[in-house]
Amino acid sequence: MSVTASASPRGETEKAGGETIREVLEEQGRVARAAARKVALLSTDQKNKALQAMAQALRDQQEDILAANAVDVAGARERDVPSALIDRLTLNPDRIEAMAEGLEAVAALPDPVGRGVGQWRLANGMEVQQVRVPLGVVGMIYEARPNVTADAAGLCLKAGNAVILRGSGEALNSNRAICQAIAKAAEEAGVPHGAIQLVDDVSRESALELMRLDKYLDVLIPRGGAGLIRAAVENATVPVLETGVGNCHIYVDESAEPDKATAIVLNAKLQRPGVCNAVETLLVHESLAGSWLPEVAAKLAEQGVELRGCQRAREAVPTMLPASEDDWHREYLDLILAVRVVDSLDAAVDHINAYGTGHSEAIVTSDYRRARRFVDAVDAAVVYANASTRFTDGFQFGLGAEIGISTQKLHARGPMGLEALTSTKYVVLGDGHVRP
Amino acid sequence: MSVTASASPRGETEKAGGETIREVLEEQGRVARAAARKVALLSTDQKNKALQAMAQALRDQQEDILAANAVDVAGARERDVPSALIDRLTLNPDRIEAMAEGLEAVAALPDPVGRGVGQWRLANGMEVQQVRVPLGVVGMIYEARPNVTADAAGLCLKAGNAVILRGSGEALNSNRAICQAIAKAAEEAGVPHGAIQLVDDVSRESALELMRLDKYLDVLIPRGGAGLIRAAVENATVPVLETGVGNCHIYVDESAEPDKATAIVLNAKLQRPGVCNAVETLLVHESLAGSWLPEVAAKLAEQGVELRGCQRAREAVPTMLPASEDDWHREYLDLILAVRVVDSLDAAVDHINAYGTGHSEAIVTSDYRRARRFVDAVDAAVVYANASTRFTDGFQFGLGAEIGISTQKLHARGPMGLEALTSTKYVVLGDGHVRP
Repeated sequence: MSVTASASPRGETEKAGGETIREVLEEQGRVARAAARKVALLSTDQKNKALQAMAQALRDQQEDILAANAVDVAGARERDVPSALIDRLTLNPDRIEAMAEGLEAVAALPDPVGRGVGQWRLANGMEVQQVRVPLGVVGMIYEARPNVTADAAGLCLKAGNAVILRGSGEALNSNRAICQAIAKAAEEAGVPHGAIQLVDDVSRESALELMRLDKYLDVLIPRGGAGLIRAAVENATVPVLETGVGNCHIYVDESAEPDKATAIVLNAKLQRPGVCNAVETLLVHESLAGSWLPEVAAKLAEQGVELRGCQRAREAVPTMLPASEDDWHREYLDLILAVRVVDSLDAAVDHINAYGTGHSEAIVTSDYRRARRFVDAVDAAVVYANASTRFTDGFQFGLGAEIGISTQKLHARGPMGLEALTSTKYVVLGDGHVRP
Repeated sequence: MSVTASASPRGETEKAGGETIREVLEEQGRVARAAARKVALLSTDQKNKALQAMAQALRDQQEDILAANAVDVAGARERDVPSALIDRLTLNPDRIEAMAEGLEAVAALPDPVGRGVGQWRLANGMEVQQVRVPLGVVGMIYEARPNVTADAAGLCLKAGNAVILRGSGEALNSNRAICQAIAKAAEEAGVPHGAIQLVDDVSRESALELMRLDKYLDVLIPRGGAGLIRAAVENATVPVLETGVGNCHIYVDESAEPDKATAIVLNAKLQRPGVCNAVETLLVHESLAGSWLPEVAAKLAEQGVELRGCQRAREAVPTMLPASEDDWHREYLDLILAVRVVDSLDAAVDHINAYGTGHSEAIVTSDYRRARRFVDAVDAAVVYANASTRFTDGFQFGLGAEIGISTQKLHARGPMGLEALTSTKYVVLGDGHVRP
């Protein structure tokens, strides 16, 4: 499938063959729905063999994938895309090997489908079973990272679902190469045609139409920046699993061990600045403003981090730029850190609950009661005591993989692995039972 | 709060005090959000005492509630509302007692908040805990049944949430009386003000604004007919838990024991026709068309049920009206039953997967393999072998109560009790851990 979008006389975007994007997506949806009924019935062995074949296909076609990715990266460089985004887009042999190993790790995970969630007998003798079943058809809309293509396809397949993938224009060549490799390998291993599909149109319209394909999709998972997530929330008629916007905070309490606090802040900002679990705002207890803060600020500046501070932070570290109200809301995804001096733990909690996106929040403290209070009072998917926010990740948490990090409260919250891609069904066994 | 809607010069609906409906709802949302942070911290004992006080308030104020309900019922009769809907609207001392006992039953249930979902230690020594936490603020939009007011308030409170209730115009007087009784009792028992609120405006606009109150609501639960559910799916920016539209089927297989099949069909149609788990279409294996079908048809007709059959069903029972394509889609909620003769179990499964709403589906059979095939292949929240669809209910399933019956696949599917009103949070305990 290779199509070009162009405006039709009626104002609808038409495909080369005369089909509108909606028609193309409805056809992809129909095929996915039919495939999903068959994928749901595949045995664990069949799915695992397909996953292993998909991993091998990535290795075998590494050259093609890297060549396609090089085209995408060159294009992004030409458009002066920020360095952190280029990092997310770029593939290399190690990252392709990591994708392949990710698929193998998914194959090694227990199959969630058919697993009992609960089983009990009612007073009237009827037996109630609650069992895990696939969701059906999953729609994914995601931005630059091409590894999501392989990760999402593998997890959806293992959980018995069909998936329709719609990546970004920046990564289109990479995504085509990856999807072609894994979809072909899966089909040759017995997975029904249409279980893994890429939307080969990266217009805004294709994203909007996919969001409204509730006739065929059971869930929509947007992965990307705040704009994409908000567009999905505003426009989707498909149930949405919100993911990924991470305005993450670290609060360094007066009781913090200074060296640990420094190590955690440097790690959370620098280890990979372009991802959602990187820290964006540092909250510092006022007792540390004159001592620890200048030290960590110097180390951050040495590493090229731009600091934007509140009035009190700038009194302690005059080289900081001034932070505006807007900075407290920002997910920089870059070498920038907002810094605010706070009076108390409660002020830190209030700041986080007011400005945070409910992703990952950390306290550094050696005080037992303050650690407990922080983890109880902060409303977020993951709350840390004395650890870097960078651990919020399905692999790190031992889930085997990750389809995204949910920042909503329904269905799944935090890193989502296989179980988040399933639903449940009640099976009730009676013997002529009627309700009195 | 007693307000009347009227069109303003700017085309926005204004309140008596000059506030728009959006402003009123935003204020209710702000109050609910503030209350939710406190409700989340109430102990189980505090919540249980409040629930018991709420139950007692319903009993103490039975006269007032019945008087208010009589006004609603008289109004509905004047507007020639169908009898099944009048049944849903009508309260009597038994139903009020059932509401009170429902609240006491919720008090007796284990508190889901703080319960561990999982806990494990990572290779690096960090401890990961996944614990249940309240959702926050729940929005409920529901149609005629006034008992939902008490049920929803009780369940939301027990799960540590604040709730904003928006009932129908038909039940406004009943809902006001119930909400006033229970909200006052809860507050006197220590529940923060604003934890239980009623939207005192039953315009379409108030429903639409509530659906878009994502700044303050964590979840929206619409309970009612297909029109309401669709409006929520189309318009909501708040995550929606779809509930309740039940186009339920019973398939009577050739291997069915005739007496059990008859009893199940009569029960599922007649025990309470106006509710979502009543059967709407009967699918009959062709081998029974000339024998069992005329018998059950006669018994249904005796009870006043109108039958609408396919061609083959009408050949067996000529008194049936003809069914149109539309009938296969209908949730009658009344004494009407569609009847279709099918060639096989697979044809029954295909019919159900094509026309069903994924609510409750039953097979009557004495054949082991066909029972297994039906429960595996039918895609629905609850699938029965040899039992009435009328059992799909939180109380019947032993959940203690029910906030609604989810017909979507995310978060919760089937009868939803307390757990469906919670989310989870990861708490990660480290000792200076950073990501390598």
